[in-house]
Parts: sequence; C-alpha cells; structure tokens
Amino acid sequence: MPVIDVHNHIVPAEFPPAPCDCMPDKWPSMRHHAGNKASVMIGGKEFRAVDHRCWDPARRAADMDAEEVDIQVLSPMPELLSYWLDAKSGLAMARHINRAIAEMVAAAPTRFRGLGMVPLQDPDLAAKELAVLRSDYGLLGIEIGSNINGRVPGDPHFDAVFAEAERLGLAIFVHSLHPVATDRLVGPPMLVPFVNFPIDTGLAAISLITGGTLARYPKLRIGFSHGGGTLAALLPRLNFGWQNMPALHGSFAAPVEAARRFYYDNLVFEPAFCRYLIEAFGVSQLFVGSDYPFPAGRGRPRDFINQLGLSASDGEALRGGNASRFLGL
Amino acid sequence: MPVIDVHNHIVPAEFPPAPCDCMPDKWPSMRHHAGNKASVMIGGKEFRAVDHRCWDPARRAADMDAEEVDIQVLSPMPELLSYWLDAKSGLAMARHINRAIAEMVAAAPTRFRGLGMVPLQDPDLAAKELAVLRSDYGLLGIEIGSNINGRVPGDPHFDAVFAEAERLGLAIFVHSLHPVATDRLVGPPMLVPFVNFPIDTGLAAISLITGGTLARYPKLRIGFSHGGGTLAALLPRLNFGWQNMPALHGSFAAPVEAARRFYYDNLVFEPAFCRYLIEAFGVSQLFVGSDYPFPAGRGRPRDFINQLGLSASDGEALRGGNASRFLGL
Repeated sequence: MPVIDVHNHIVPAEFPPAPCDCMPDKWPSMRHHAGNKASVMIGGKEFRAVDHRCWDPARRAADMDAEEVDIQVLSPMPELLSYWLDAKSGLAMARHINRAIAEMVAAAPTRFRGLGMVPLQDPDLAAKELAVLRSDYGLLGIEIGSNINGRVPGDPHFDAVFAEAERLGLAIFVHSLHPVATDRLVGPPMLVPFVNFPIDTGLAAISLITGGTLARYPKLRIGFSHGGGTLAALLPRLNFGWQNMPALHGSFAAPVEAARRFYYDNLVFEPAFCRYLIEAFGVSQLFVGSDYPFPAGRGRPRDFINQLGLSASDGEALRGGNASRFLGL
Repeated sequence: MPVIDVHNHIVPAEFPPAPCDCMPDKWPSMRHHAGNKASVMIGGKEFRAVDHRCWDPARRAADMDAEEVDIQVLSPMPELLSYWLDAKSGLAMARHINRAIAEMVAAAPTRFRGLGMVPLQDPDLAAKELAVLRSDYGLLGIEIGSNINGRVPGDPHFDAVFAEAERLGLAIFVHSLHPVATDRLVGPPMLVPFVNFPIDTGLAAISLITGGTLARYPKLRIGFSHGGGTLAALLPRLNFGWQNMPALHGSFAAPVEAARRFYYDNLVFEPAFCRYLIEAFGVSQLFVGSDYPFPAGRGRPRDFINQLGLSASDGEALRGGNASRFLGL
C-alpha cells in the first residue's frame, strides 16, 4: 500500500495577467528571485514567500523520496481559491490552477494526483465546472474553503455543487481559509493559522452535519484538513444536545454517525490527540496530511503513524488505504 | 472526600427594580407562576423558564442527595453577569446576586459554597469589588464570561481584576456567554449553546495563554466550564506553532504547561473525550460540573467518573480533591 499524502499544496510558477483592471488588490502575480525563490504578490505586497517546491514536480518527488511519501494529492494554496473575485474571474483562476495541477500530475503520474478548485462564489457555475475539472484536467475532486466569503459550506446555497460532486464521484477536501473570530486573539497575527484555522474547519464540519448535506448526498466523500480542527471537541456536546433537545433532534441526523462518515487528515501533531480522533471518528476515516511545502507542516508520515500503536492493517489504512477510498481510486 | 460540583447555577427568586429607567431592555425581573415555576423576564420577554431549583437551598439539597453530590459551588446563571449594563448598574446587580448566593450558602453551609460576580465592564471597579465579595459575602471567587462585551479575558485590559484575585486567593471560573460566530450556524438557534459555547470558551482559554495572564499572575487559579470547550483540540496545533514559529515562541510561554495549570470541569458527556482531557491536561486538573438545574446538564457525577477507568485516588481527585485545590478550601 503506497503512502498517500492528501494534504499538500501547490502554487503555479506563473499567473496570467488579471482578466480586467477591476481588482488591483485581489489578483495574484509571481515575482521570481534567485535560487528558485519567489514571492506571491497580492495587491502590491508579498502575500507569501515561496520556492520551487510549490511548482516543480521533480523537486517535490525528491522530497517525497526523502520523506517516504509515495503519492501526493496536489491541491491549491488556499488563498488561490479566490472566492472574493467576481465569478468569471474566479473561473479563469480556477482553470489556470486546475491546468497547473494537471500538468504537474502529467509530469510524474505515478507520484501525483490532483484536487482542483471551482468558483464557489457562484454555485451553479461551480457545479458546471466540476465536469470540466474531471474530464479535461483529470482531477479527483476539489479543495474548498472552510467558508466561502463568510458562508459555511453546509449552507444549502451550495447544494448544486455537492449534488454534482456526488454524481461525478468527486472528493471534497475542506481547508481553512479567512477564518472567523480573528478579533478574539491576544498576541501576534501569526496566531491566526494556529487558533482560528481549526475553529473555522470545525464550524464547516458542523454546518455539513446540521445543514443535512451528508443526508441529502449520501455517497458524497468529504475530508477535512487538520484532523477536522475543533470538530472532535465539539462533537460530544453536540451529540448530547441532539439526543436531548427536540429542536435539534428534529432538525438533522445523528451527528456522531455523520462525523464517522467524514474523512480527516492526521496533521494534528500530537499522537495522543490523533489516537483520540481514531477513537471518535473511526480508524477507517483518517489519512495522511503534511501541508508540504509550508512551514506549519510535518513530514515523515510513517514516523508519526508508527507512534500511534496501531495494528499493521490499521497502519496501512492510515498510510494509504483510507486515502484511496476517499479519492475513489 | 466529598463530591464537589463546581459548575451549577442559581437565579435569585427576585430582582430589585432597575436602578434607572435607562435600560428597559436589559435589566431582568422575575414573574412567578404556580407550582414553584417562574420566568426570568428581560426586555418584556421570557429569557428562560426556571423553577425553585434555581433559588431554593432545600430543594437543591434534596436533589443533591439523589444525585450523590455533597457540595455545590453556586454561581450565577451566566446571563446575569450583566456586562452590557453601565458599570454602576452592573455593580448593583453583582451585589444583589452575590448576596443571594451568600444567603443560599448560609442556609446550608455544609452543602454550598459560592462563586460570585463583579462588573467586568469596568475592570478597576470590578477589582475593587473583589475584596467586598470575599469579606462581606464570603465567596470563594467569581464566575466570568468567556468574553466581556466581545473582549477576551486574556486582554491585558482586565489585568487589575486578575492581580487582585491572585492577591486575595480567589478562584476564577470561566463560563461561555454571548459567544462568537453564531452567524456560522446552519440550523435552529438552539445550536448556539452546543456549538458556539465551547468555541468561545476555547478562545477565552487561548487568550489567557497567549496574552500571558498566567505568566503575570502565577498563583492565579482559573477553571473552565465544559472541559475548556475547544481548547483540547486547539492546544496540539498551538503548541506546534509555538515550538516552530519564532513570532509565537517569543510572545508567550509554553501553551501546554499553561493548559496543565488551568482547571476544567468534566461536563463533556463522553467518557472517551474526558479521558483524553485527563491525558492532555492532567488528572489533577479536572473537577465535577453538572450545569444543574439547566437542561444541558448532567447529574450523577459518580456514575460518569466510574466510567473513566481511573485508579481510586485519581477518582477521588476528580470527585472533589481537585475542586478543593481550585477553590482554595
């Protein structure tokens, strides 16, 4: 069973010019520097310093060899999801990114698979694009934000996308983006990805439970970054409320069963917490996530899984079996 | 070792008239009905249907006998914390509530202790009131909201209160109140206490870590309702960030060590999750919480603790030993 890393990101080496002059602050561009380094520029400022690990399949494959990863499932750097552009520009960005991912997969098809993106700011347009993403780019699903311009993915507003993803057998990978409650931090802005990302991911998962998305699309496969964020801490209390409050019991199906249908990456850093996720969600629902090549990531997935005290077959499930099922391989 | 329930609430049988005509929507009143029932009225509407369990020490003691609880540590129904009143009115409410709690304790001093409240909308006034609360009302500490009009408790704005609480040896019990991110729900409003309460409590705990409150007041004893909410899911990632990001490492002390100095109630409903809290925070840091007499509560703490598979001495610690330390008994 190959080791399959479902959570890692790409940035293309170049962006096309903005499709109009209407969004000087929003459309990204790339400024290349010496030594394979570059800056992703947004609104005239460096959004993130990156390097060729973001776009070079050969460099990635070499790193994967060192990290004992067989397959990376490439997905966009979340900021590229571009929900804040007009829908037409969002579609142009989506196709550029989807093509970049498809080209990286084509460069080393035994080492890479791809999850693309669609312009969720227009759910009908996004739903239509899913067939293109699958047929023209050969991608296995999409990465989506934990919120889309402040709307949680469990809002029925997005149902067209989930209906079509289910019909086409595409996987949905939810990643935190522009999270809620950043005004509740005391400390440096760098806290946001460490505190608010998991909160936003947890709220996204809760919305997909309480909004009934899973119930309406029972074959949909949905995975969450960072072990589902705060979901594991929210679920016991939500389940208690669901069992005891008629207003909740009548509104949505059993939260624990829904949570045991979701998938989660194992990028939670603490083996004890990962063991609790396995207990809460099921050993069949976790897969490898590394966040490669970004600094909040963690490599060498075999080492982490070896610390969990799993049986050989459960270890195989975490290393790649569950990812295969999630991706429909 | 007596069983000590640190998380339960009171509402006084009566409220004084509002101290001015300036807040018709905010000052509560009580409307009594037949059968020991009543409505807490705020702004002309029923905020909550209650009954004499909220104010009658004899009825509470009878219920405690049935639930095998020896001592309840009484604290205000959180909505009574009244941070949204002007500070002078908030102080009037605080004294009314603190007196009501003191009277209930006096009615059965072997069965009750009390945590009061102070008007945190004015930290200096609140800090000054702590000495009154201790000397005139004999209370052991205060309940505070997980946010104070949107400000997290780890904001240095509140330092005067924590400094004085440390000096006087008073305990701080943090309870969720008017939580963040209610606009991120899909489903009935009843979801708020089950989803957003734990998020707000988690953010409060994070703020007290990243804002350095514990480092500045090393003898302060702080406890959290509902097992610290989402803190247990946030801590591994925050700790990873703290270990790897200079911007975080230079800003505050080790998050895991701080979390293992906090106290937490065990009102988390799932034994497996409670066992994880014990692993993450330490068996010395959890105490009993029931939320009596409200519907999201859980009684019979011995039964829940018996499901945790603890040693006899660790069971004793959870039943009452840790609460004694938290309260400075």
